[in-house]
Amino acid sequence: MSELLLYEGKAKQIFRTEHPELVRVKYKNDTTAFNGEKFAQLEGKGALNNRISSFLFELLAREGVASHFVEQLSETEQLVRQVTIVPLEVVVRNVAAGSLAKRIGWEEGRVLPEPVVEFYYKDDDLGDPLLAEDHLRLLGLATEEERVELRRQGLQINQILRPYLEQRGLRLIDFKLEFGKDASGRLLLADEISPDTCRFWDMNTAEKLDKDRFRRDLGGVTEAYQRVWERIQ
Amino acid sequence: MSELLLYEGKAKQIFRTEHPELVRVKYKNDTTAFNGEKFAQLEGKGALNNRISSFLFELLAREGVASHFVEQLSETEQLVRQVTIVPLEVVVRNVAAGSLAKRIGWEEGRVLPEPVVEFYYKDDDLGDPLLAEDHLRLLGLATEEERVELRRQGLQINQILRPYLEQRGLRLIDFKLEFGKDASGRLLLADEISPDTCRFWDMNTAEKLDKDRFRRDLGGVTEAYQRVWERIQ
Repeated sequence: MSELLLYEGKAKQIFRTEHPELVRVKYKNDTTAFNGEKFAQLEGKGALNNRISSFLFELLAREGVASHFVEQLSETEQLVRQVTIVPLEVVVRNVAAGSLAKRIGWEEGRVLPEPVVEFYYKDDDLGDPLLAEDHLRLLGLATEEERVELRRQGLQINQILRPYLEQRGLRLIDFKLEFGKDASGRLLLADEISPDTCRFWDMNTAEKLDKDRFRRDLGGVTEAYQRVWERIQ
Repeated sequence: MSELLLYEGKAKQIFRTEHPELVRVKYKNDTTAFNGEKFAQLEGKGALNNRISSFLFELLAREGVASHFVEQLSETEQLVRQVTIVPLEVVVRNVAAGSLAKRIGWEEGRVLPEPVVEFYYKDDDLGDPLLAEDHLRLLGLATEEERVELRRQGLQINQILRPYLEQRGLRLIDFKLEFGKDASGRLLLADEISPDTCRFWDMNTAEKLDKDRFRRDLGGVTEAYQRVWERIQ
């Protein structure tokens, strides 16, 4: 297996494989927040996110949601289909938290009457701004048809994950998805689904079990990720 | 006519009339920007905005766009139908400028391939944030049907004003509309249409003839408004 690094992001590296349509993703311990301003190395975080994400991609596949995920290769690695990432963050929310709470002035923890889907422009220089639907077409990020499909998939994934996690004592507050296009132009769920990209709160205590522990200096970050991993299986 | 003040905004006062469904709007010389942080009194500005806005509401009415406007009463006053303002700013853009240019990283002056409609939450405490379409429903600001109707009206008004102004040497860069509901719940165009709420650039020189002269300390604010008034008639 060639070691050629194709791409390095904040939390993952992507390597070429011998198969032209497959790449190897390596989950790093690097943890960043606020557009990279806050940074730490958290021992074991990469392995936990790899496990959690592999597990959730497999769960989604069984429910009919196609993703780039092929298989887990090692403690920190996955084999995935190569896709060209659409520079959009598709955020699905069930409960007000983070930037939504700030934007609309709702208290964190207030339940939304129905799930909300938002699109953010994946652009570090611009600070990943919220986009209105018209901006997606303006920026060539998604046709009207693709926007509807991204929204549909976001809501479908929410409908699968939310009850599954609730039965295991985890409240799915919100999560961020990324999608890519394969060689044939098909939209595929990509990136990862982990406590780095979701907000999970303990159902009973409302304890945060996700990257907000890092963002807000609450401590016990990998311990929280470990608890997510133990509960979801 | 009773002098009872019903409401005072940053740029206008609204007074009761003897007719329960009609109110009197008085355009002030007060000029504000950046959520009220920047403030000035500009002699003659209220009268110019009243004239320009009355003229454009009449123009739109002839083209079939209903608004709250009934008639101009005096140099600084209009008679309008009383409506409950929907706390949304409907922004229609033809050219990148202001917050859109910043948000998506496009140079100011870059022409958009097609007009773009954005919705902002009219809330000073929150800084009038951009809203995604799902937020409108979440906040009870507009049903899906109303959102589509607001967008349609915004684009229709653009299709009327843009060529009309271009023929008179004014480029319509973008503009902000507000809508209200009358007693029967009907959506009506409201607020004003003036250099306080539109960006107008000289077609040939790209000189700014709108509130950006105030926001950006370019001077000659009322002189620019006066030139808009002279050209549009």
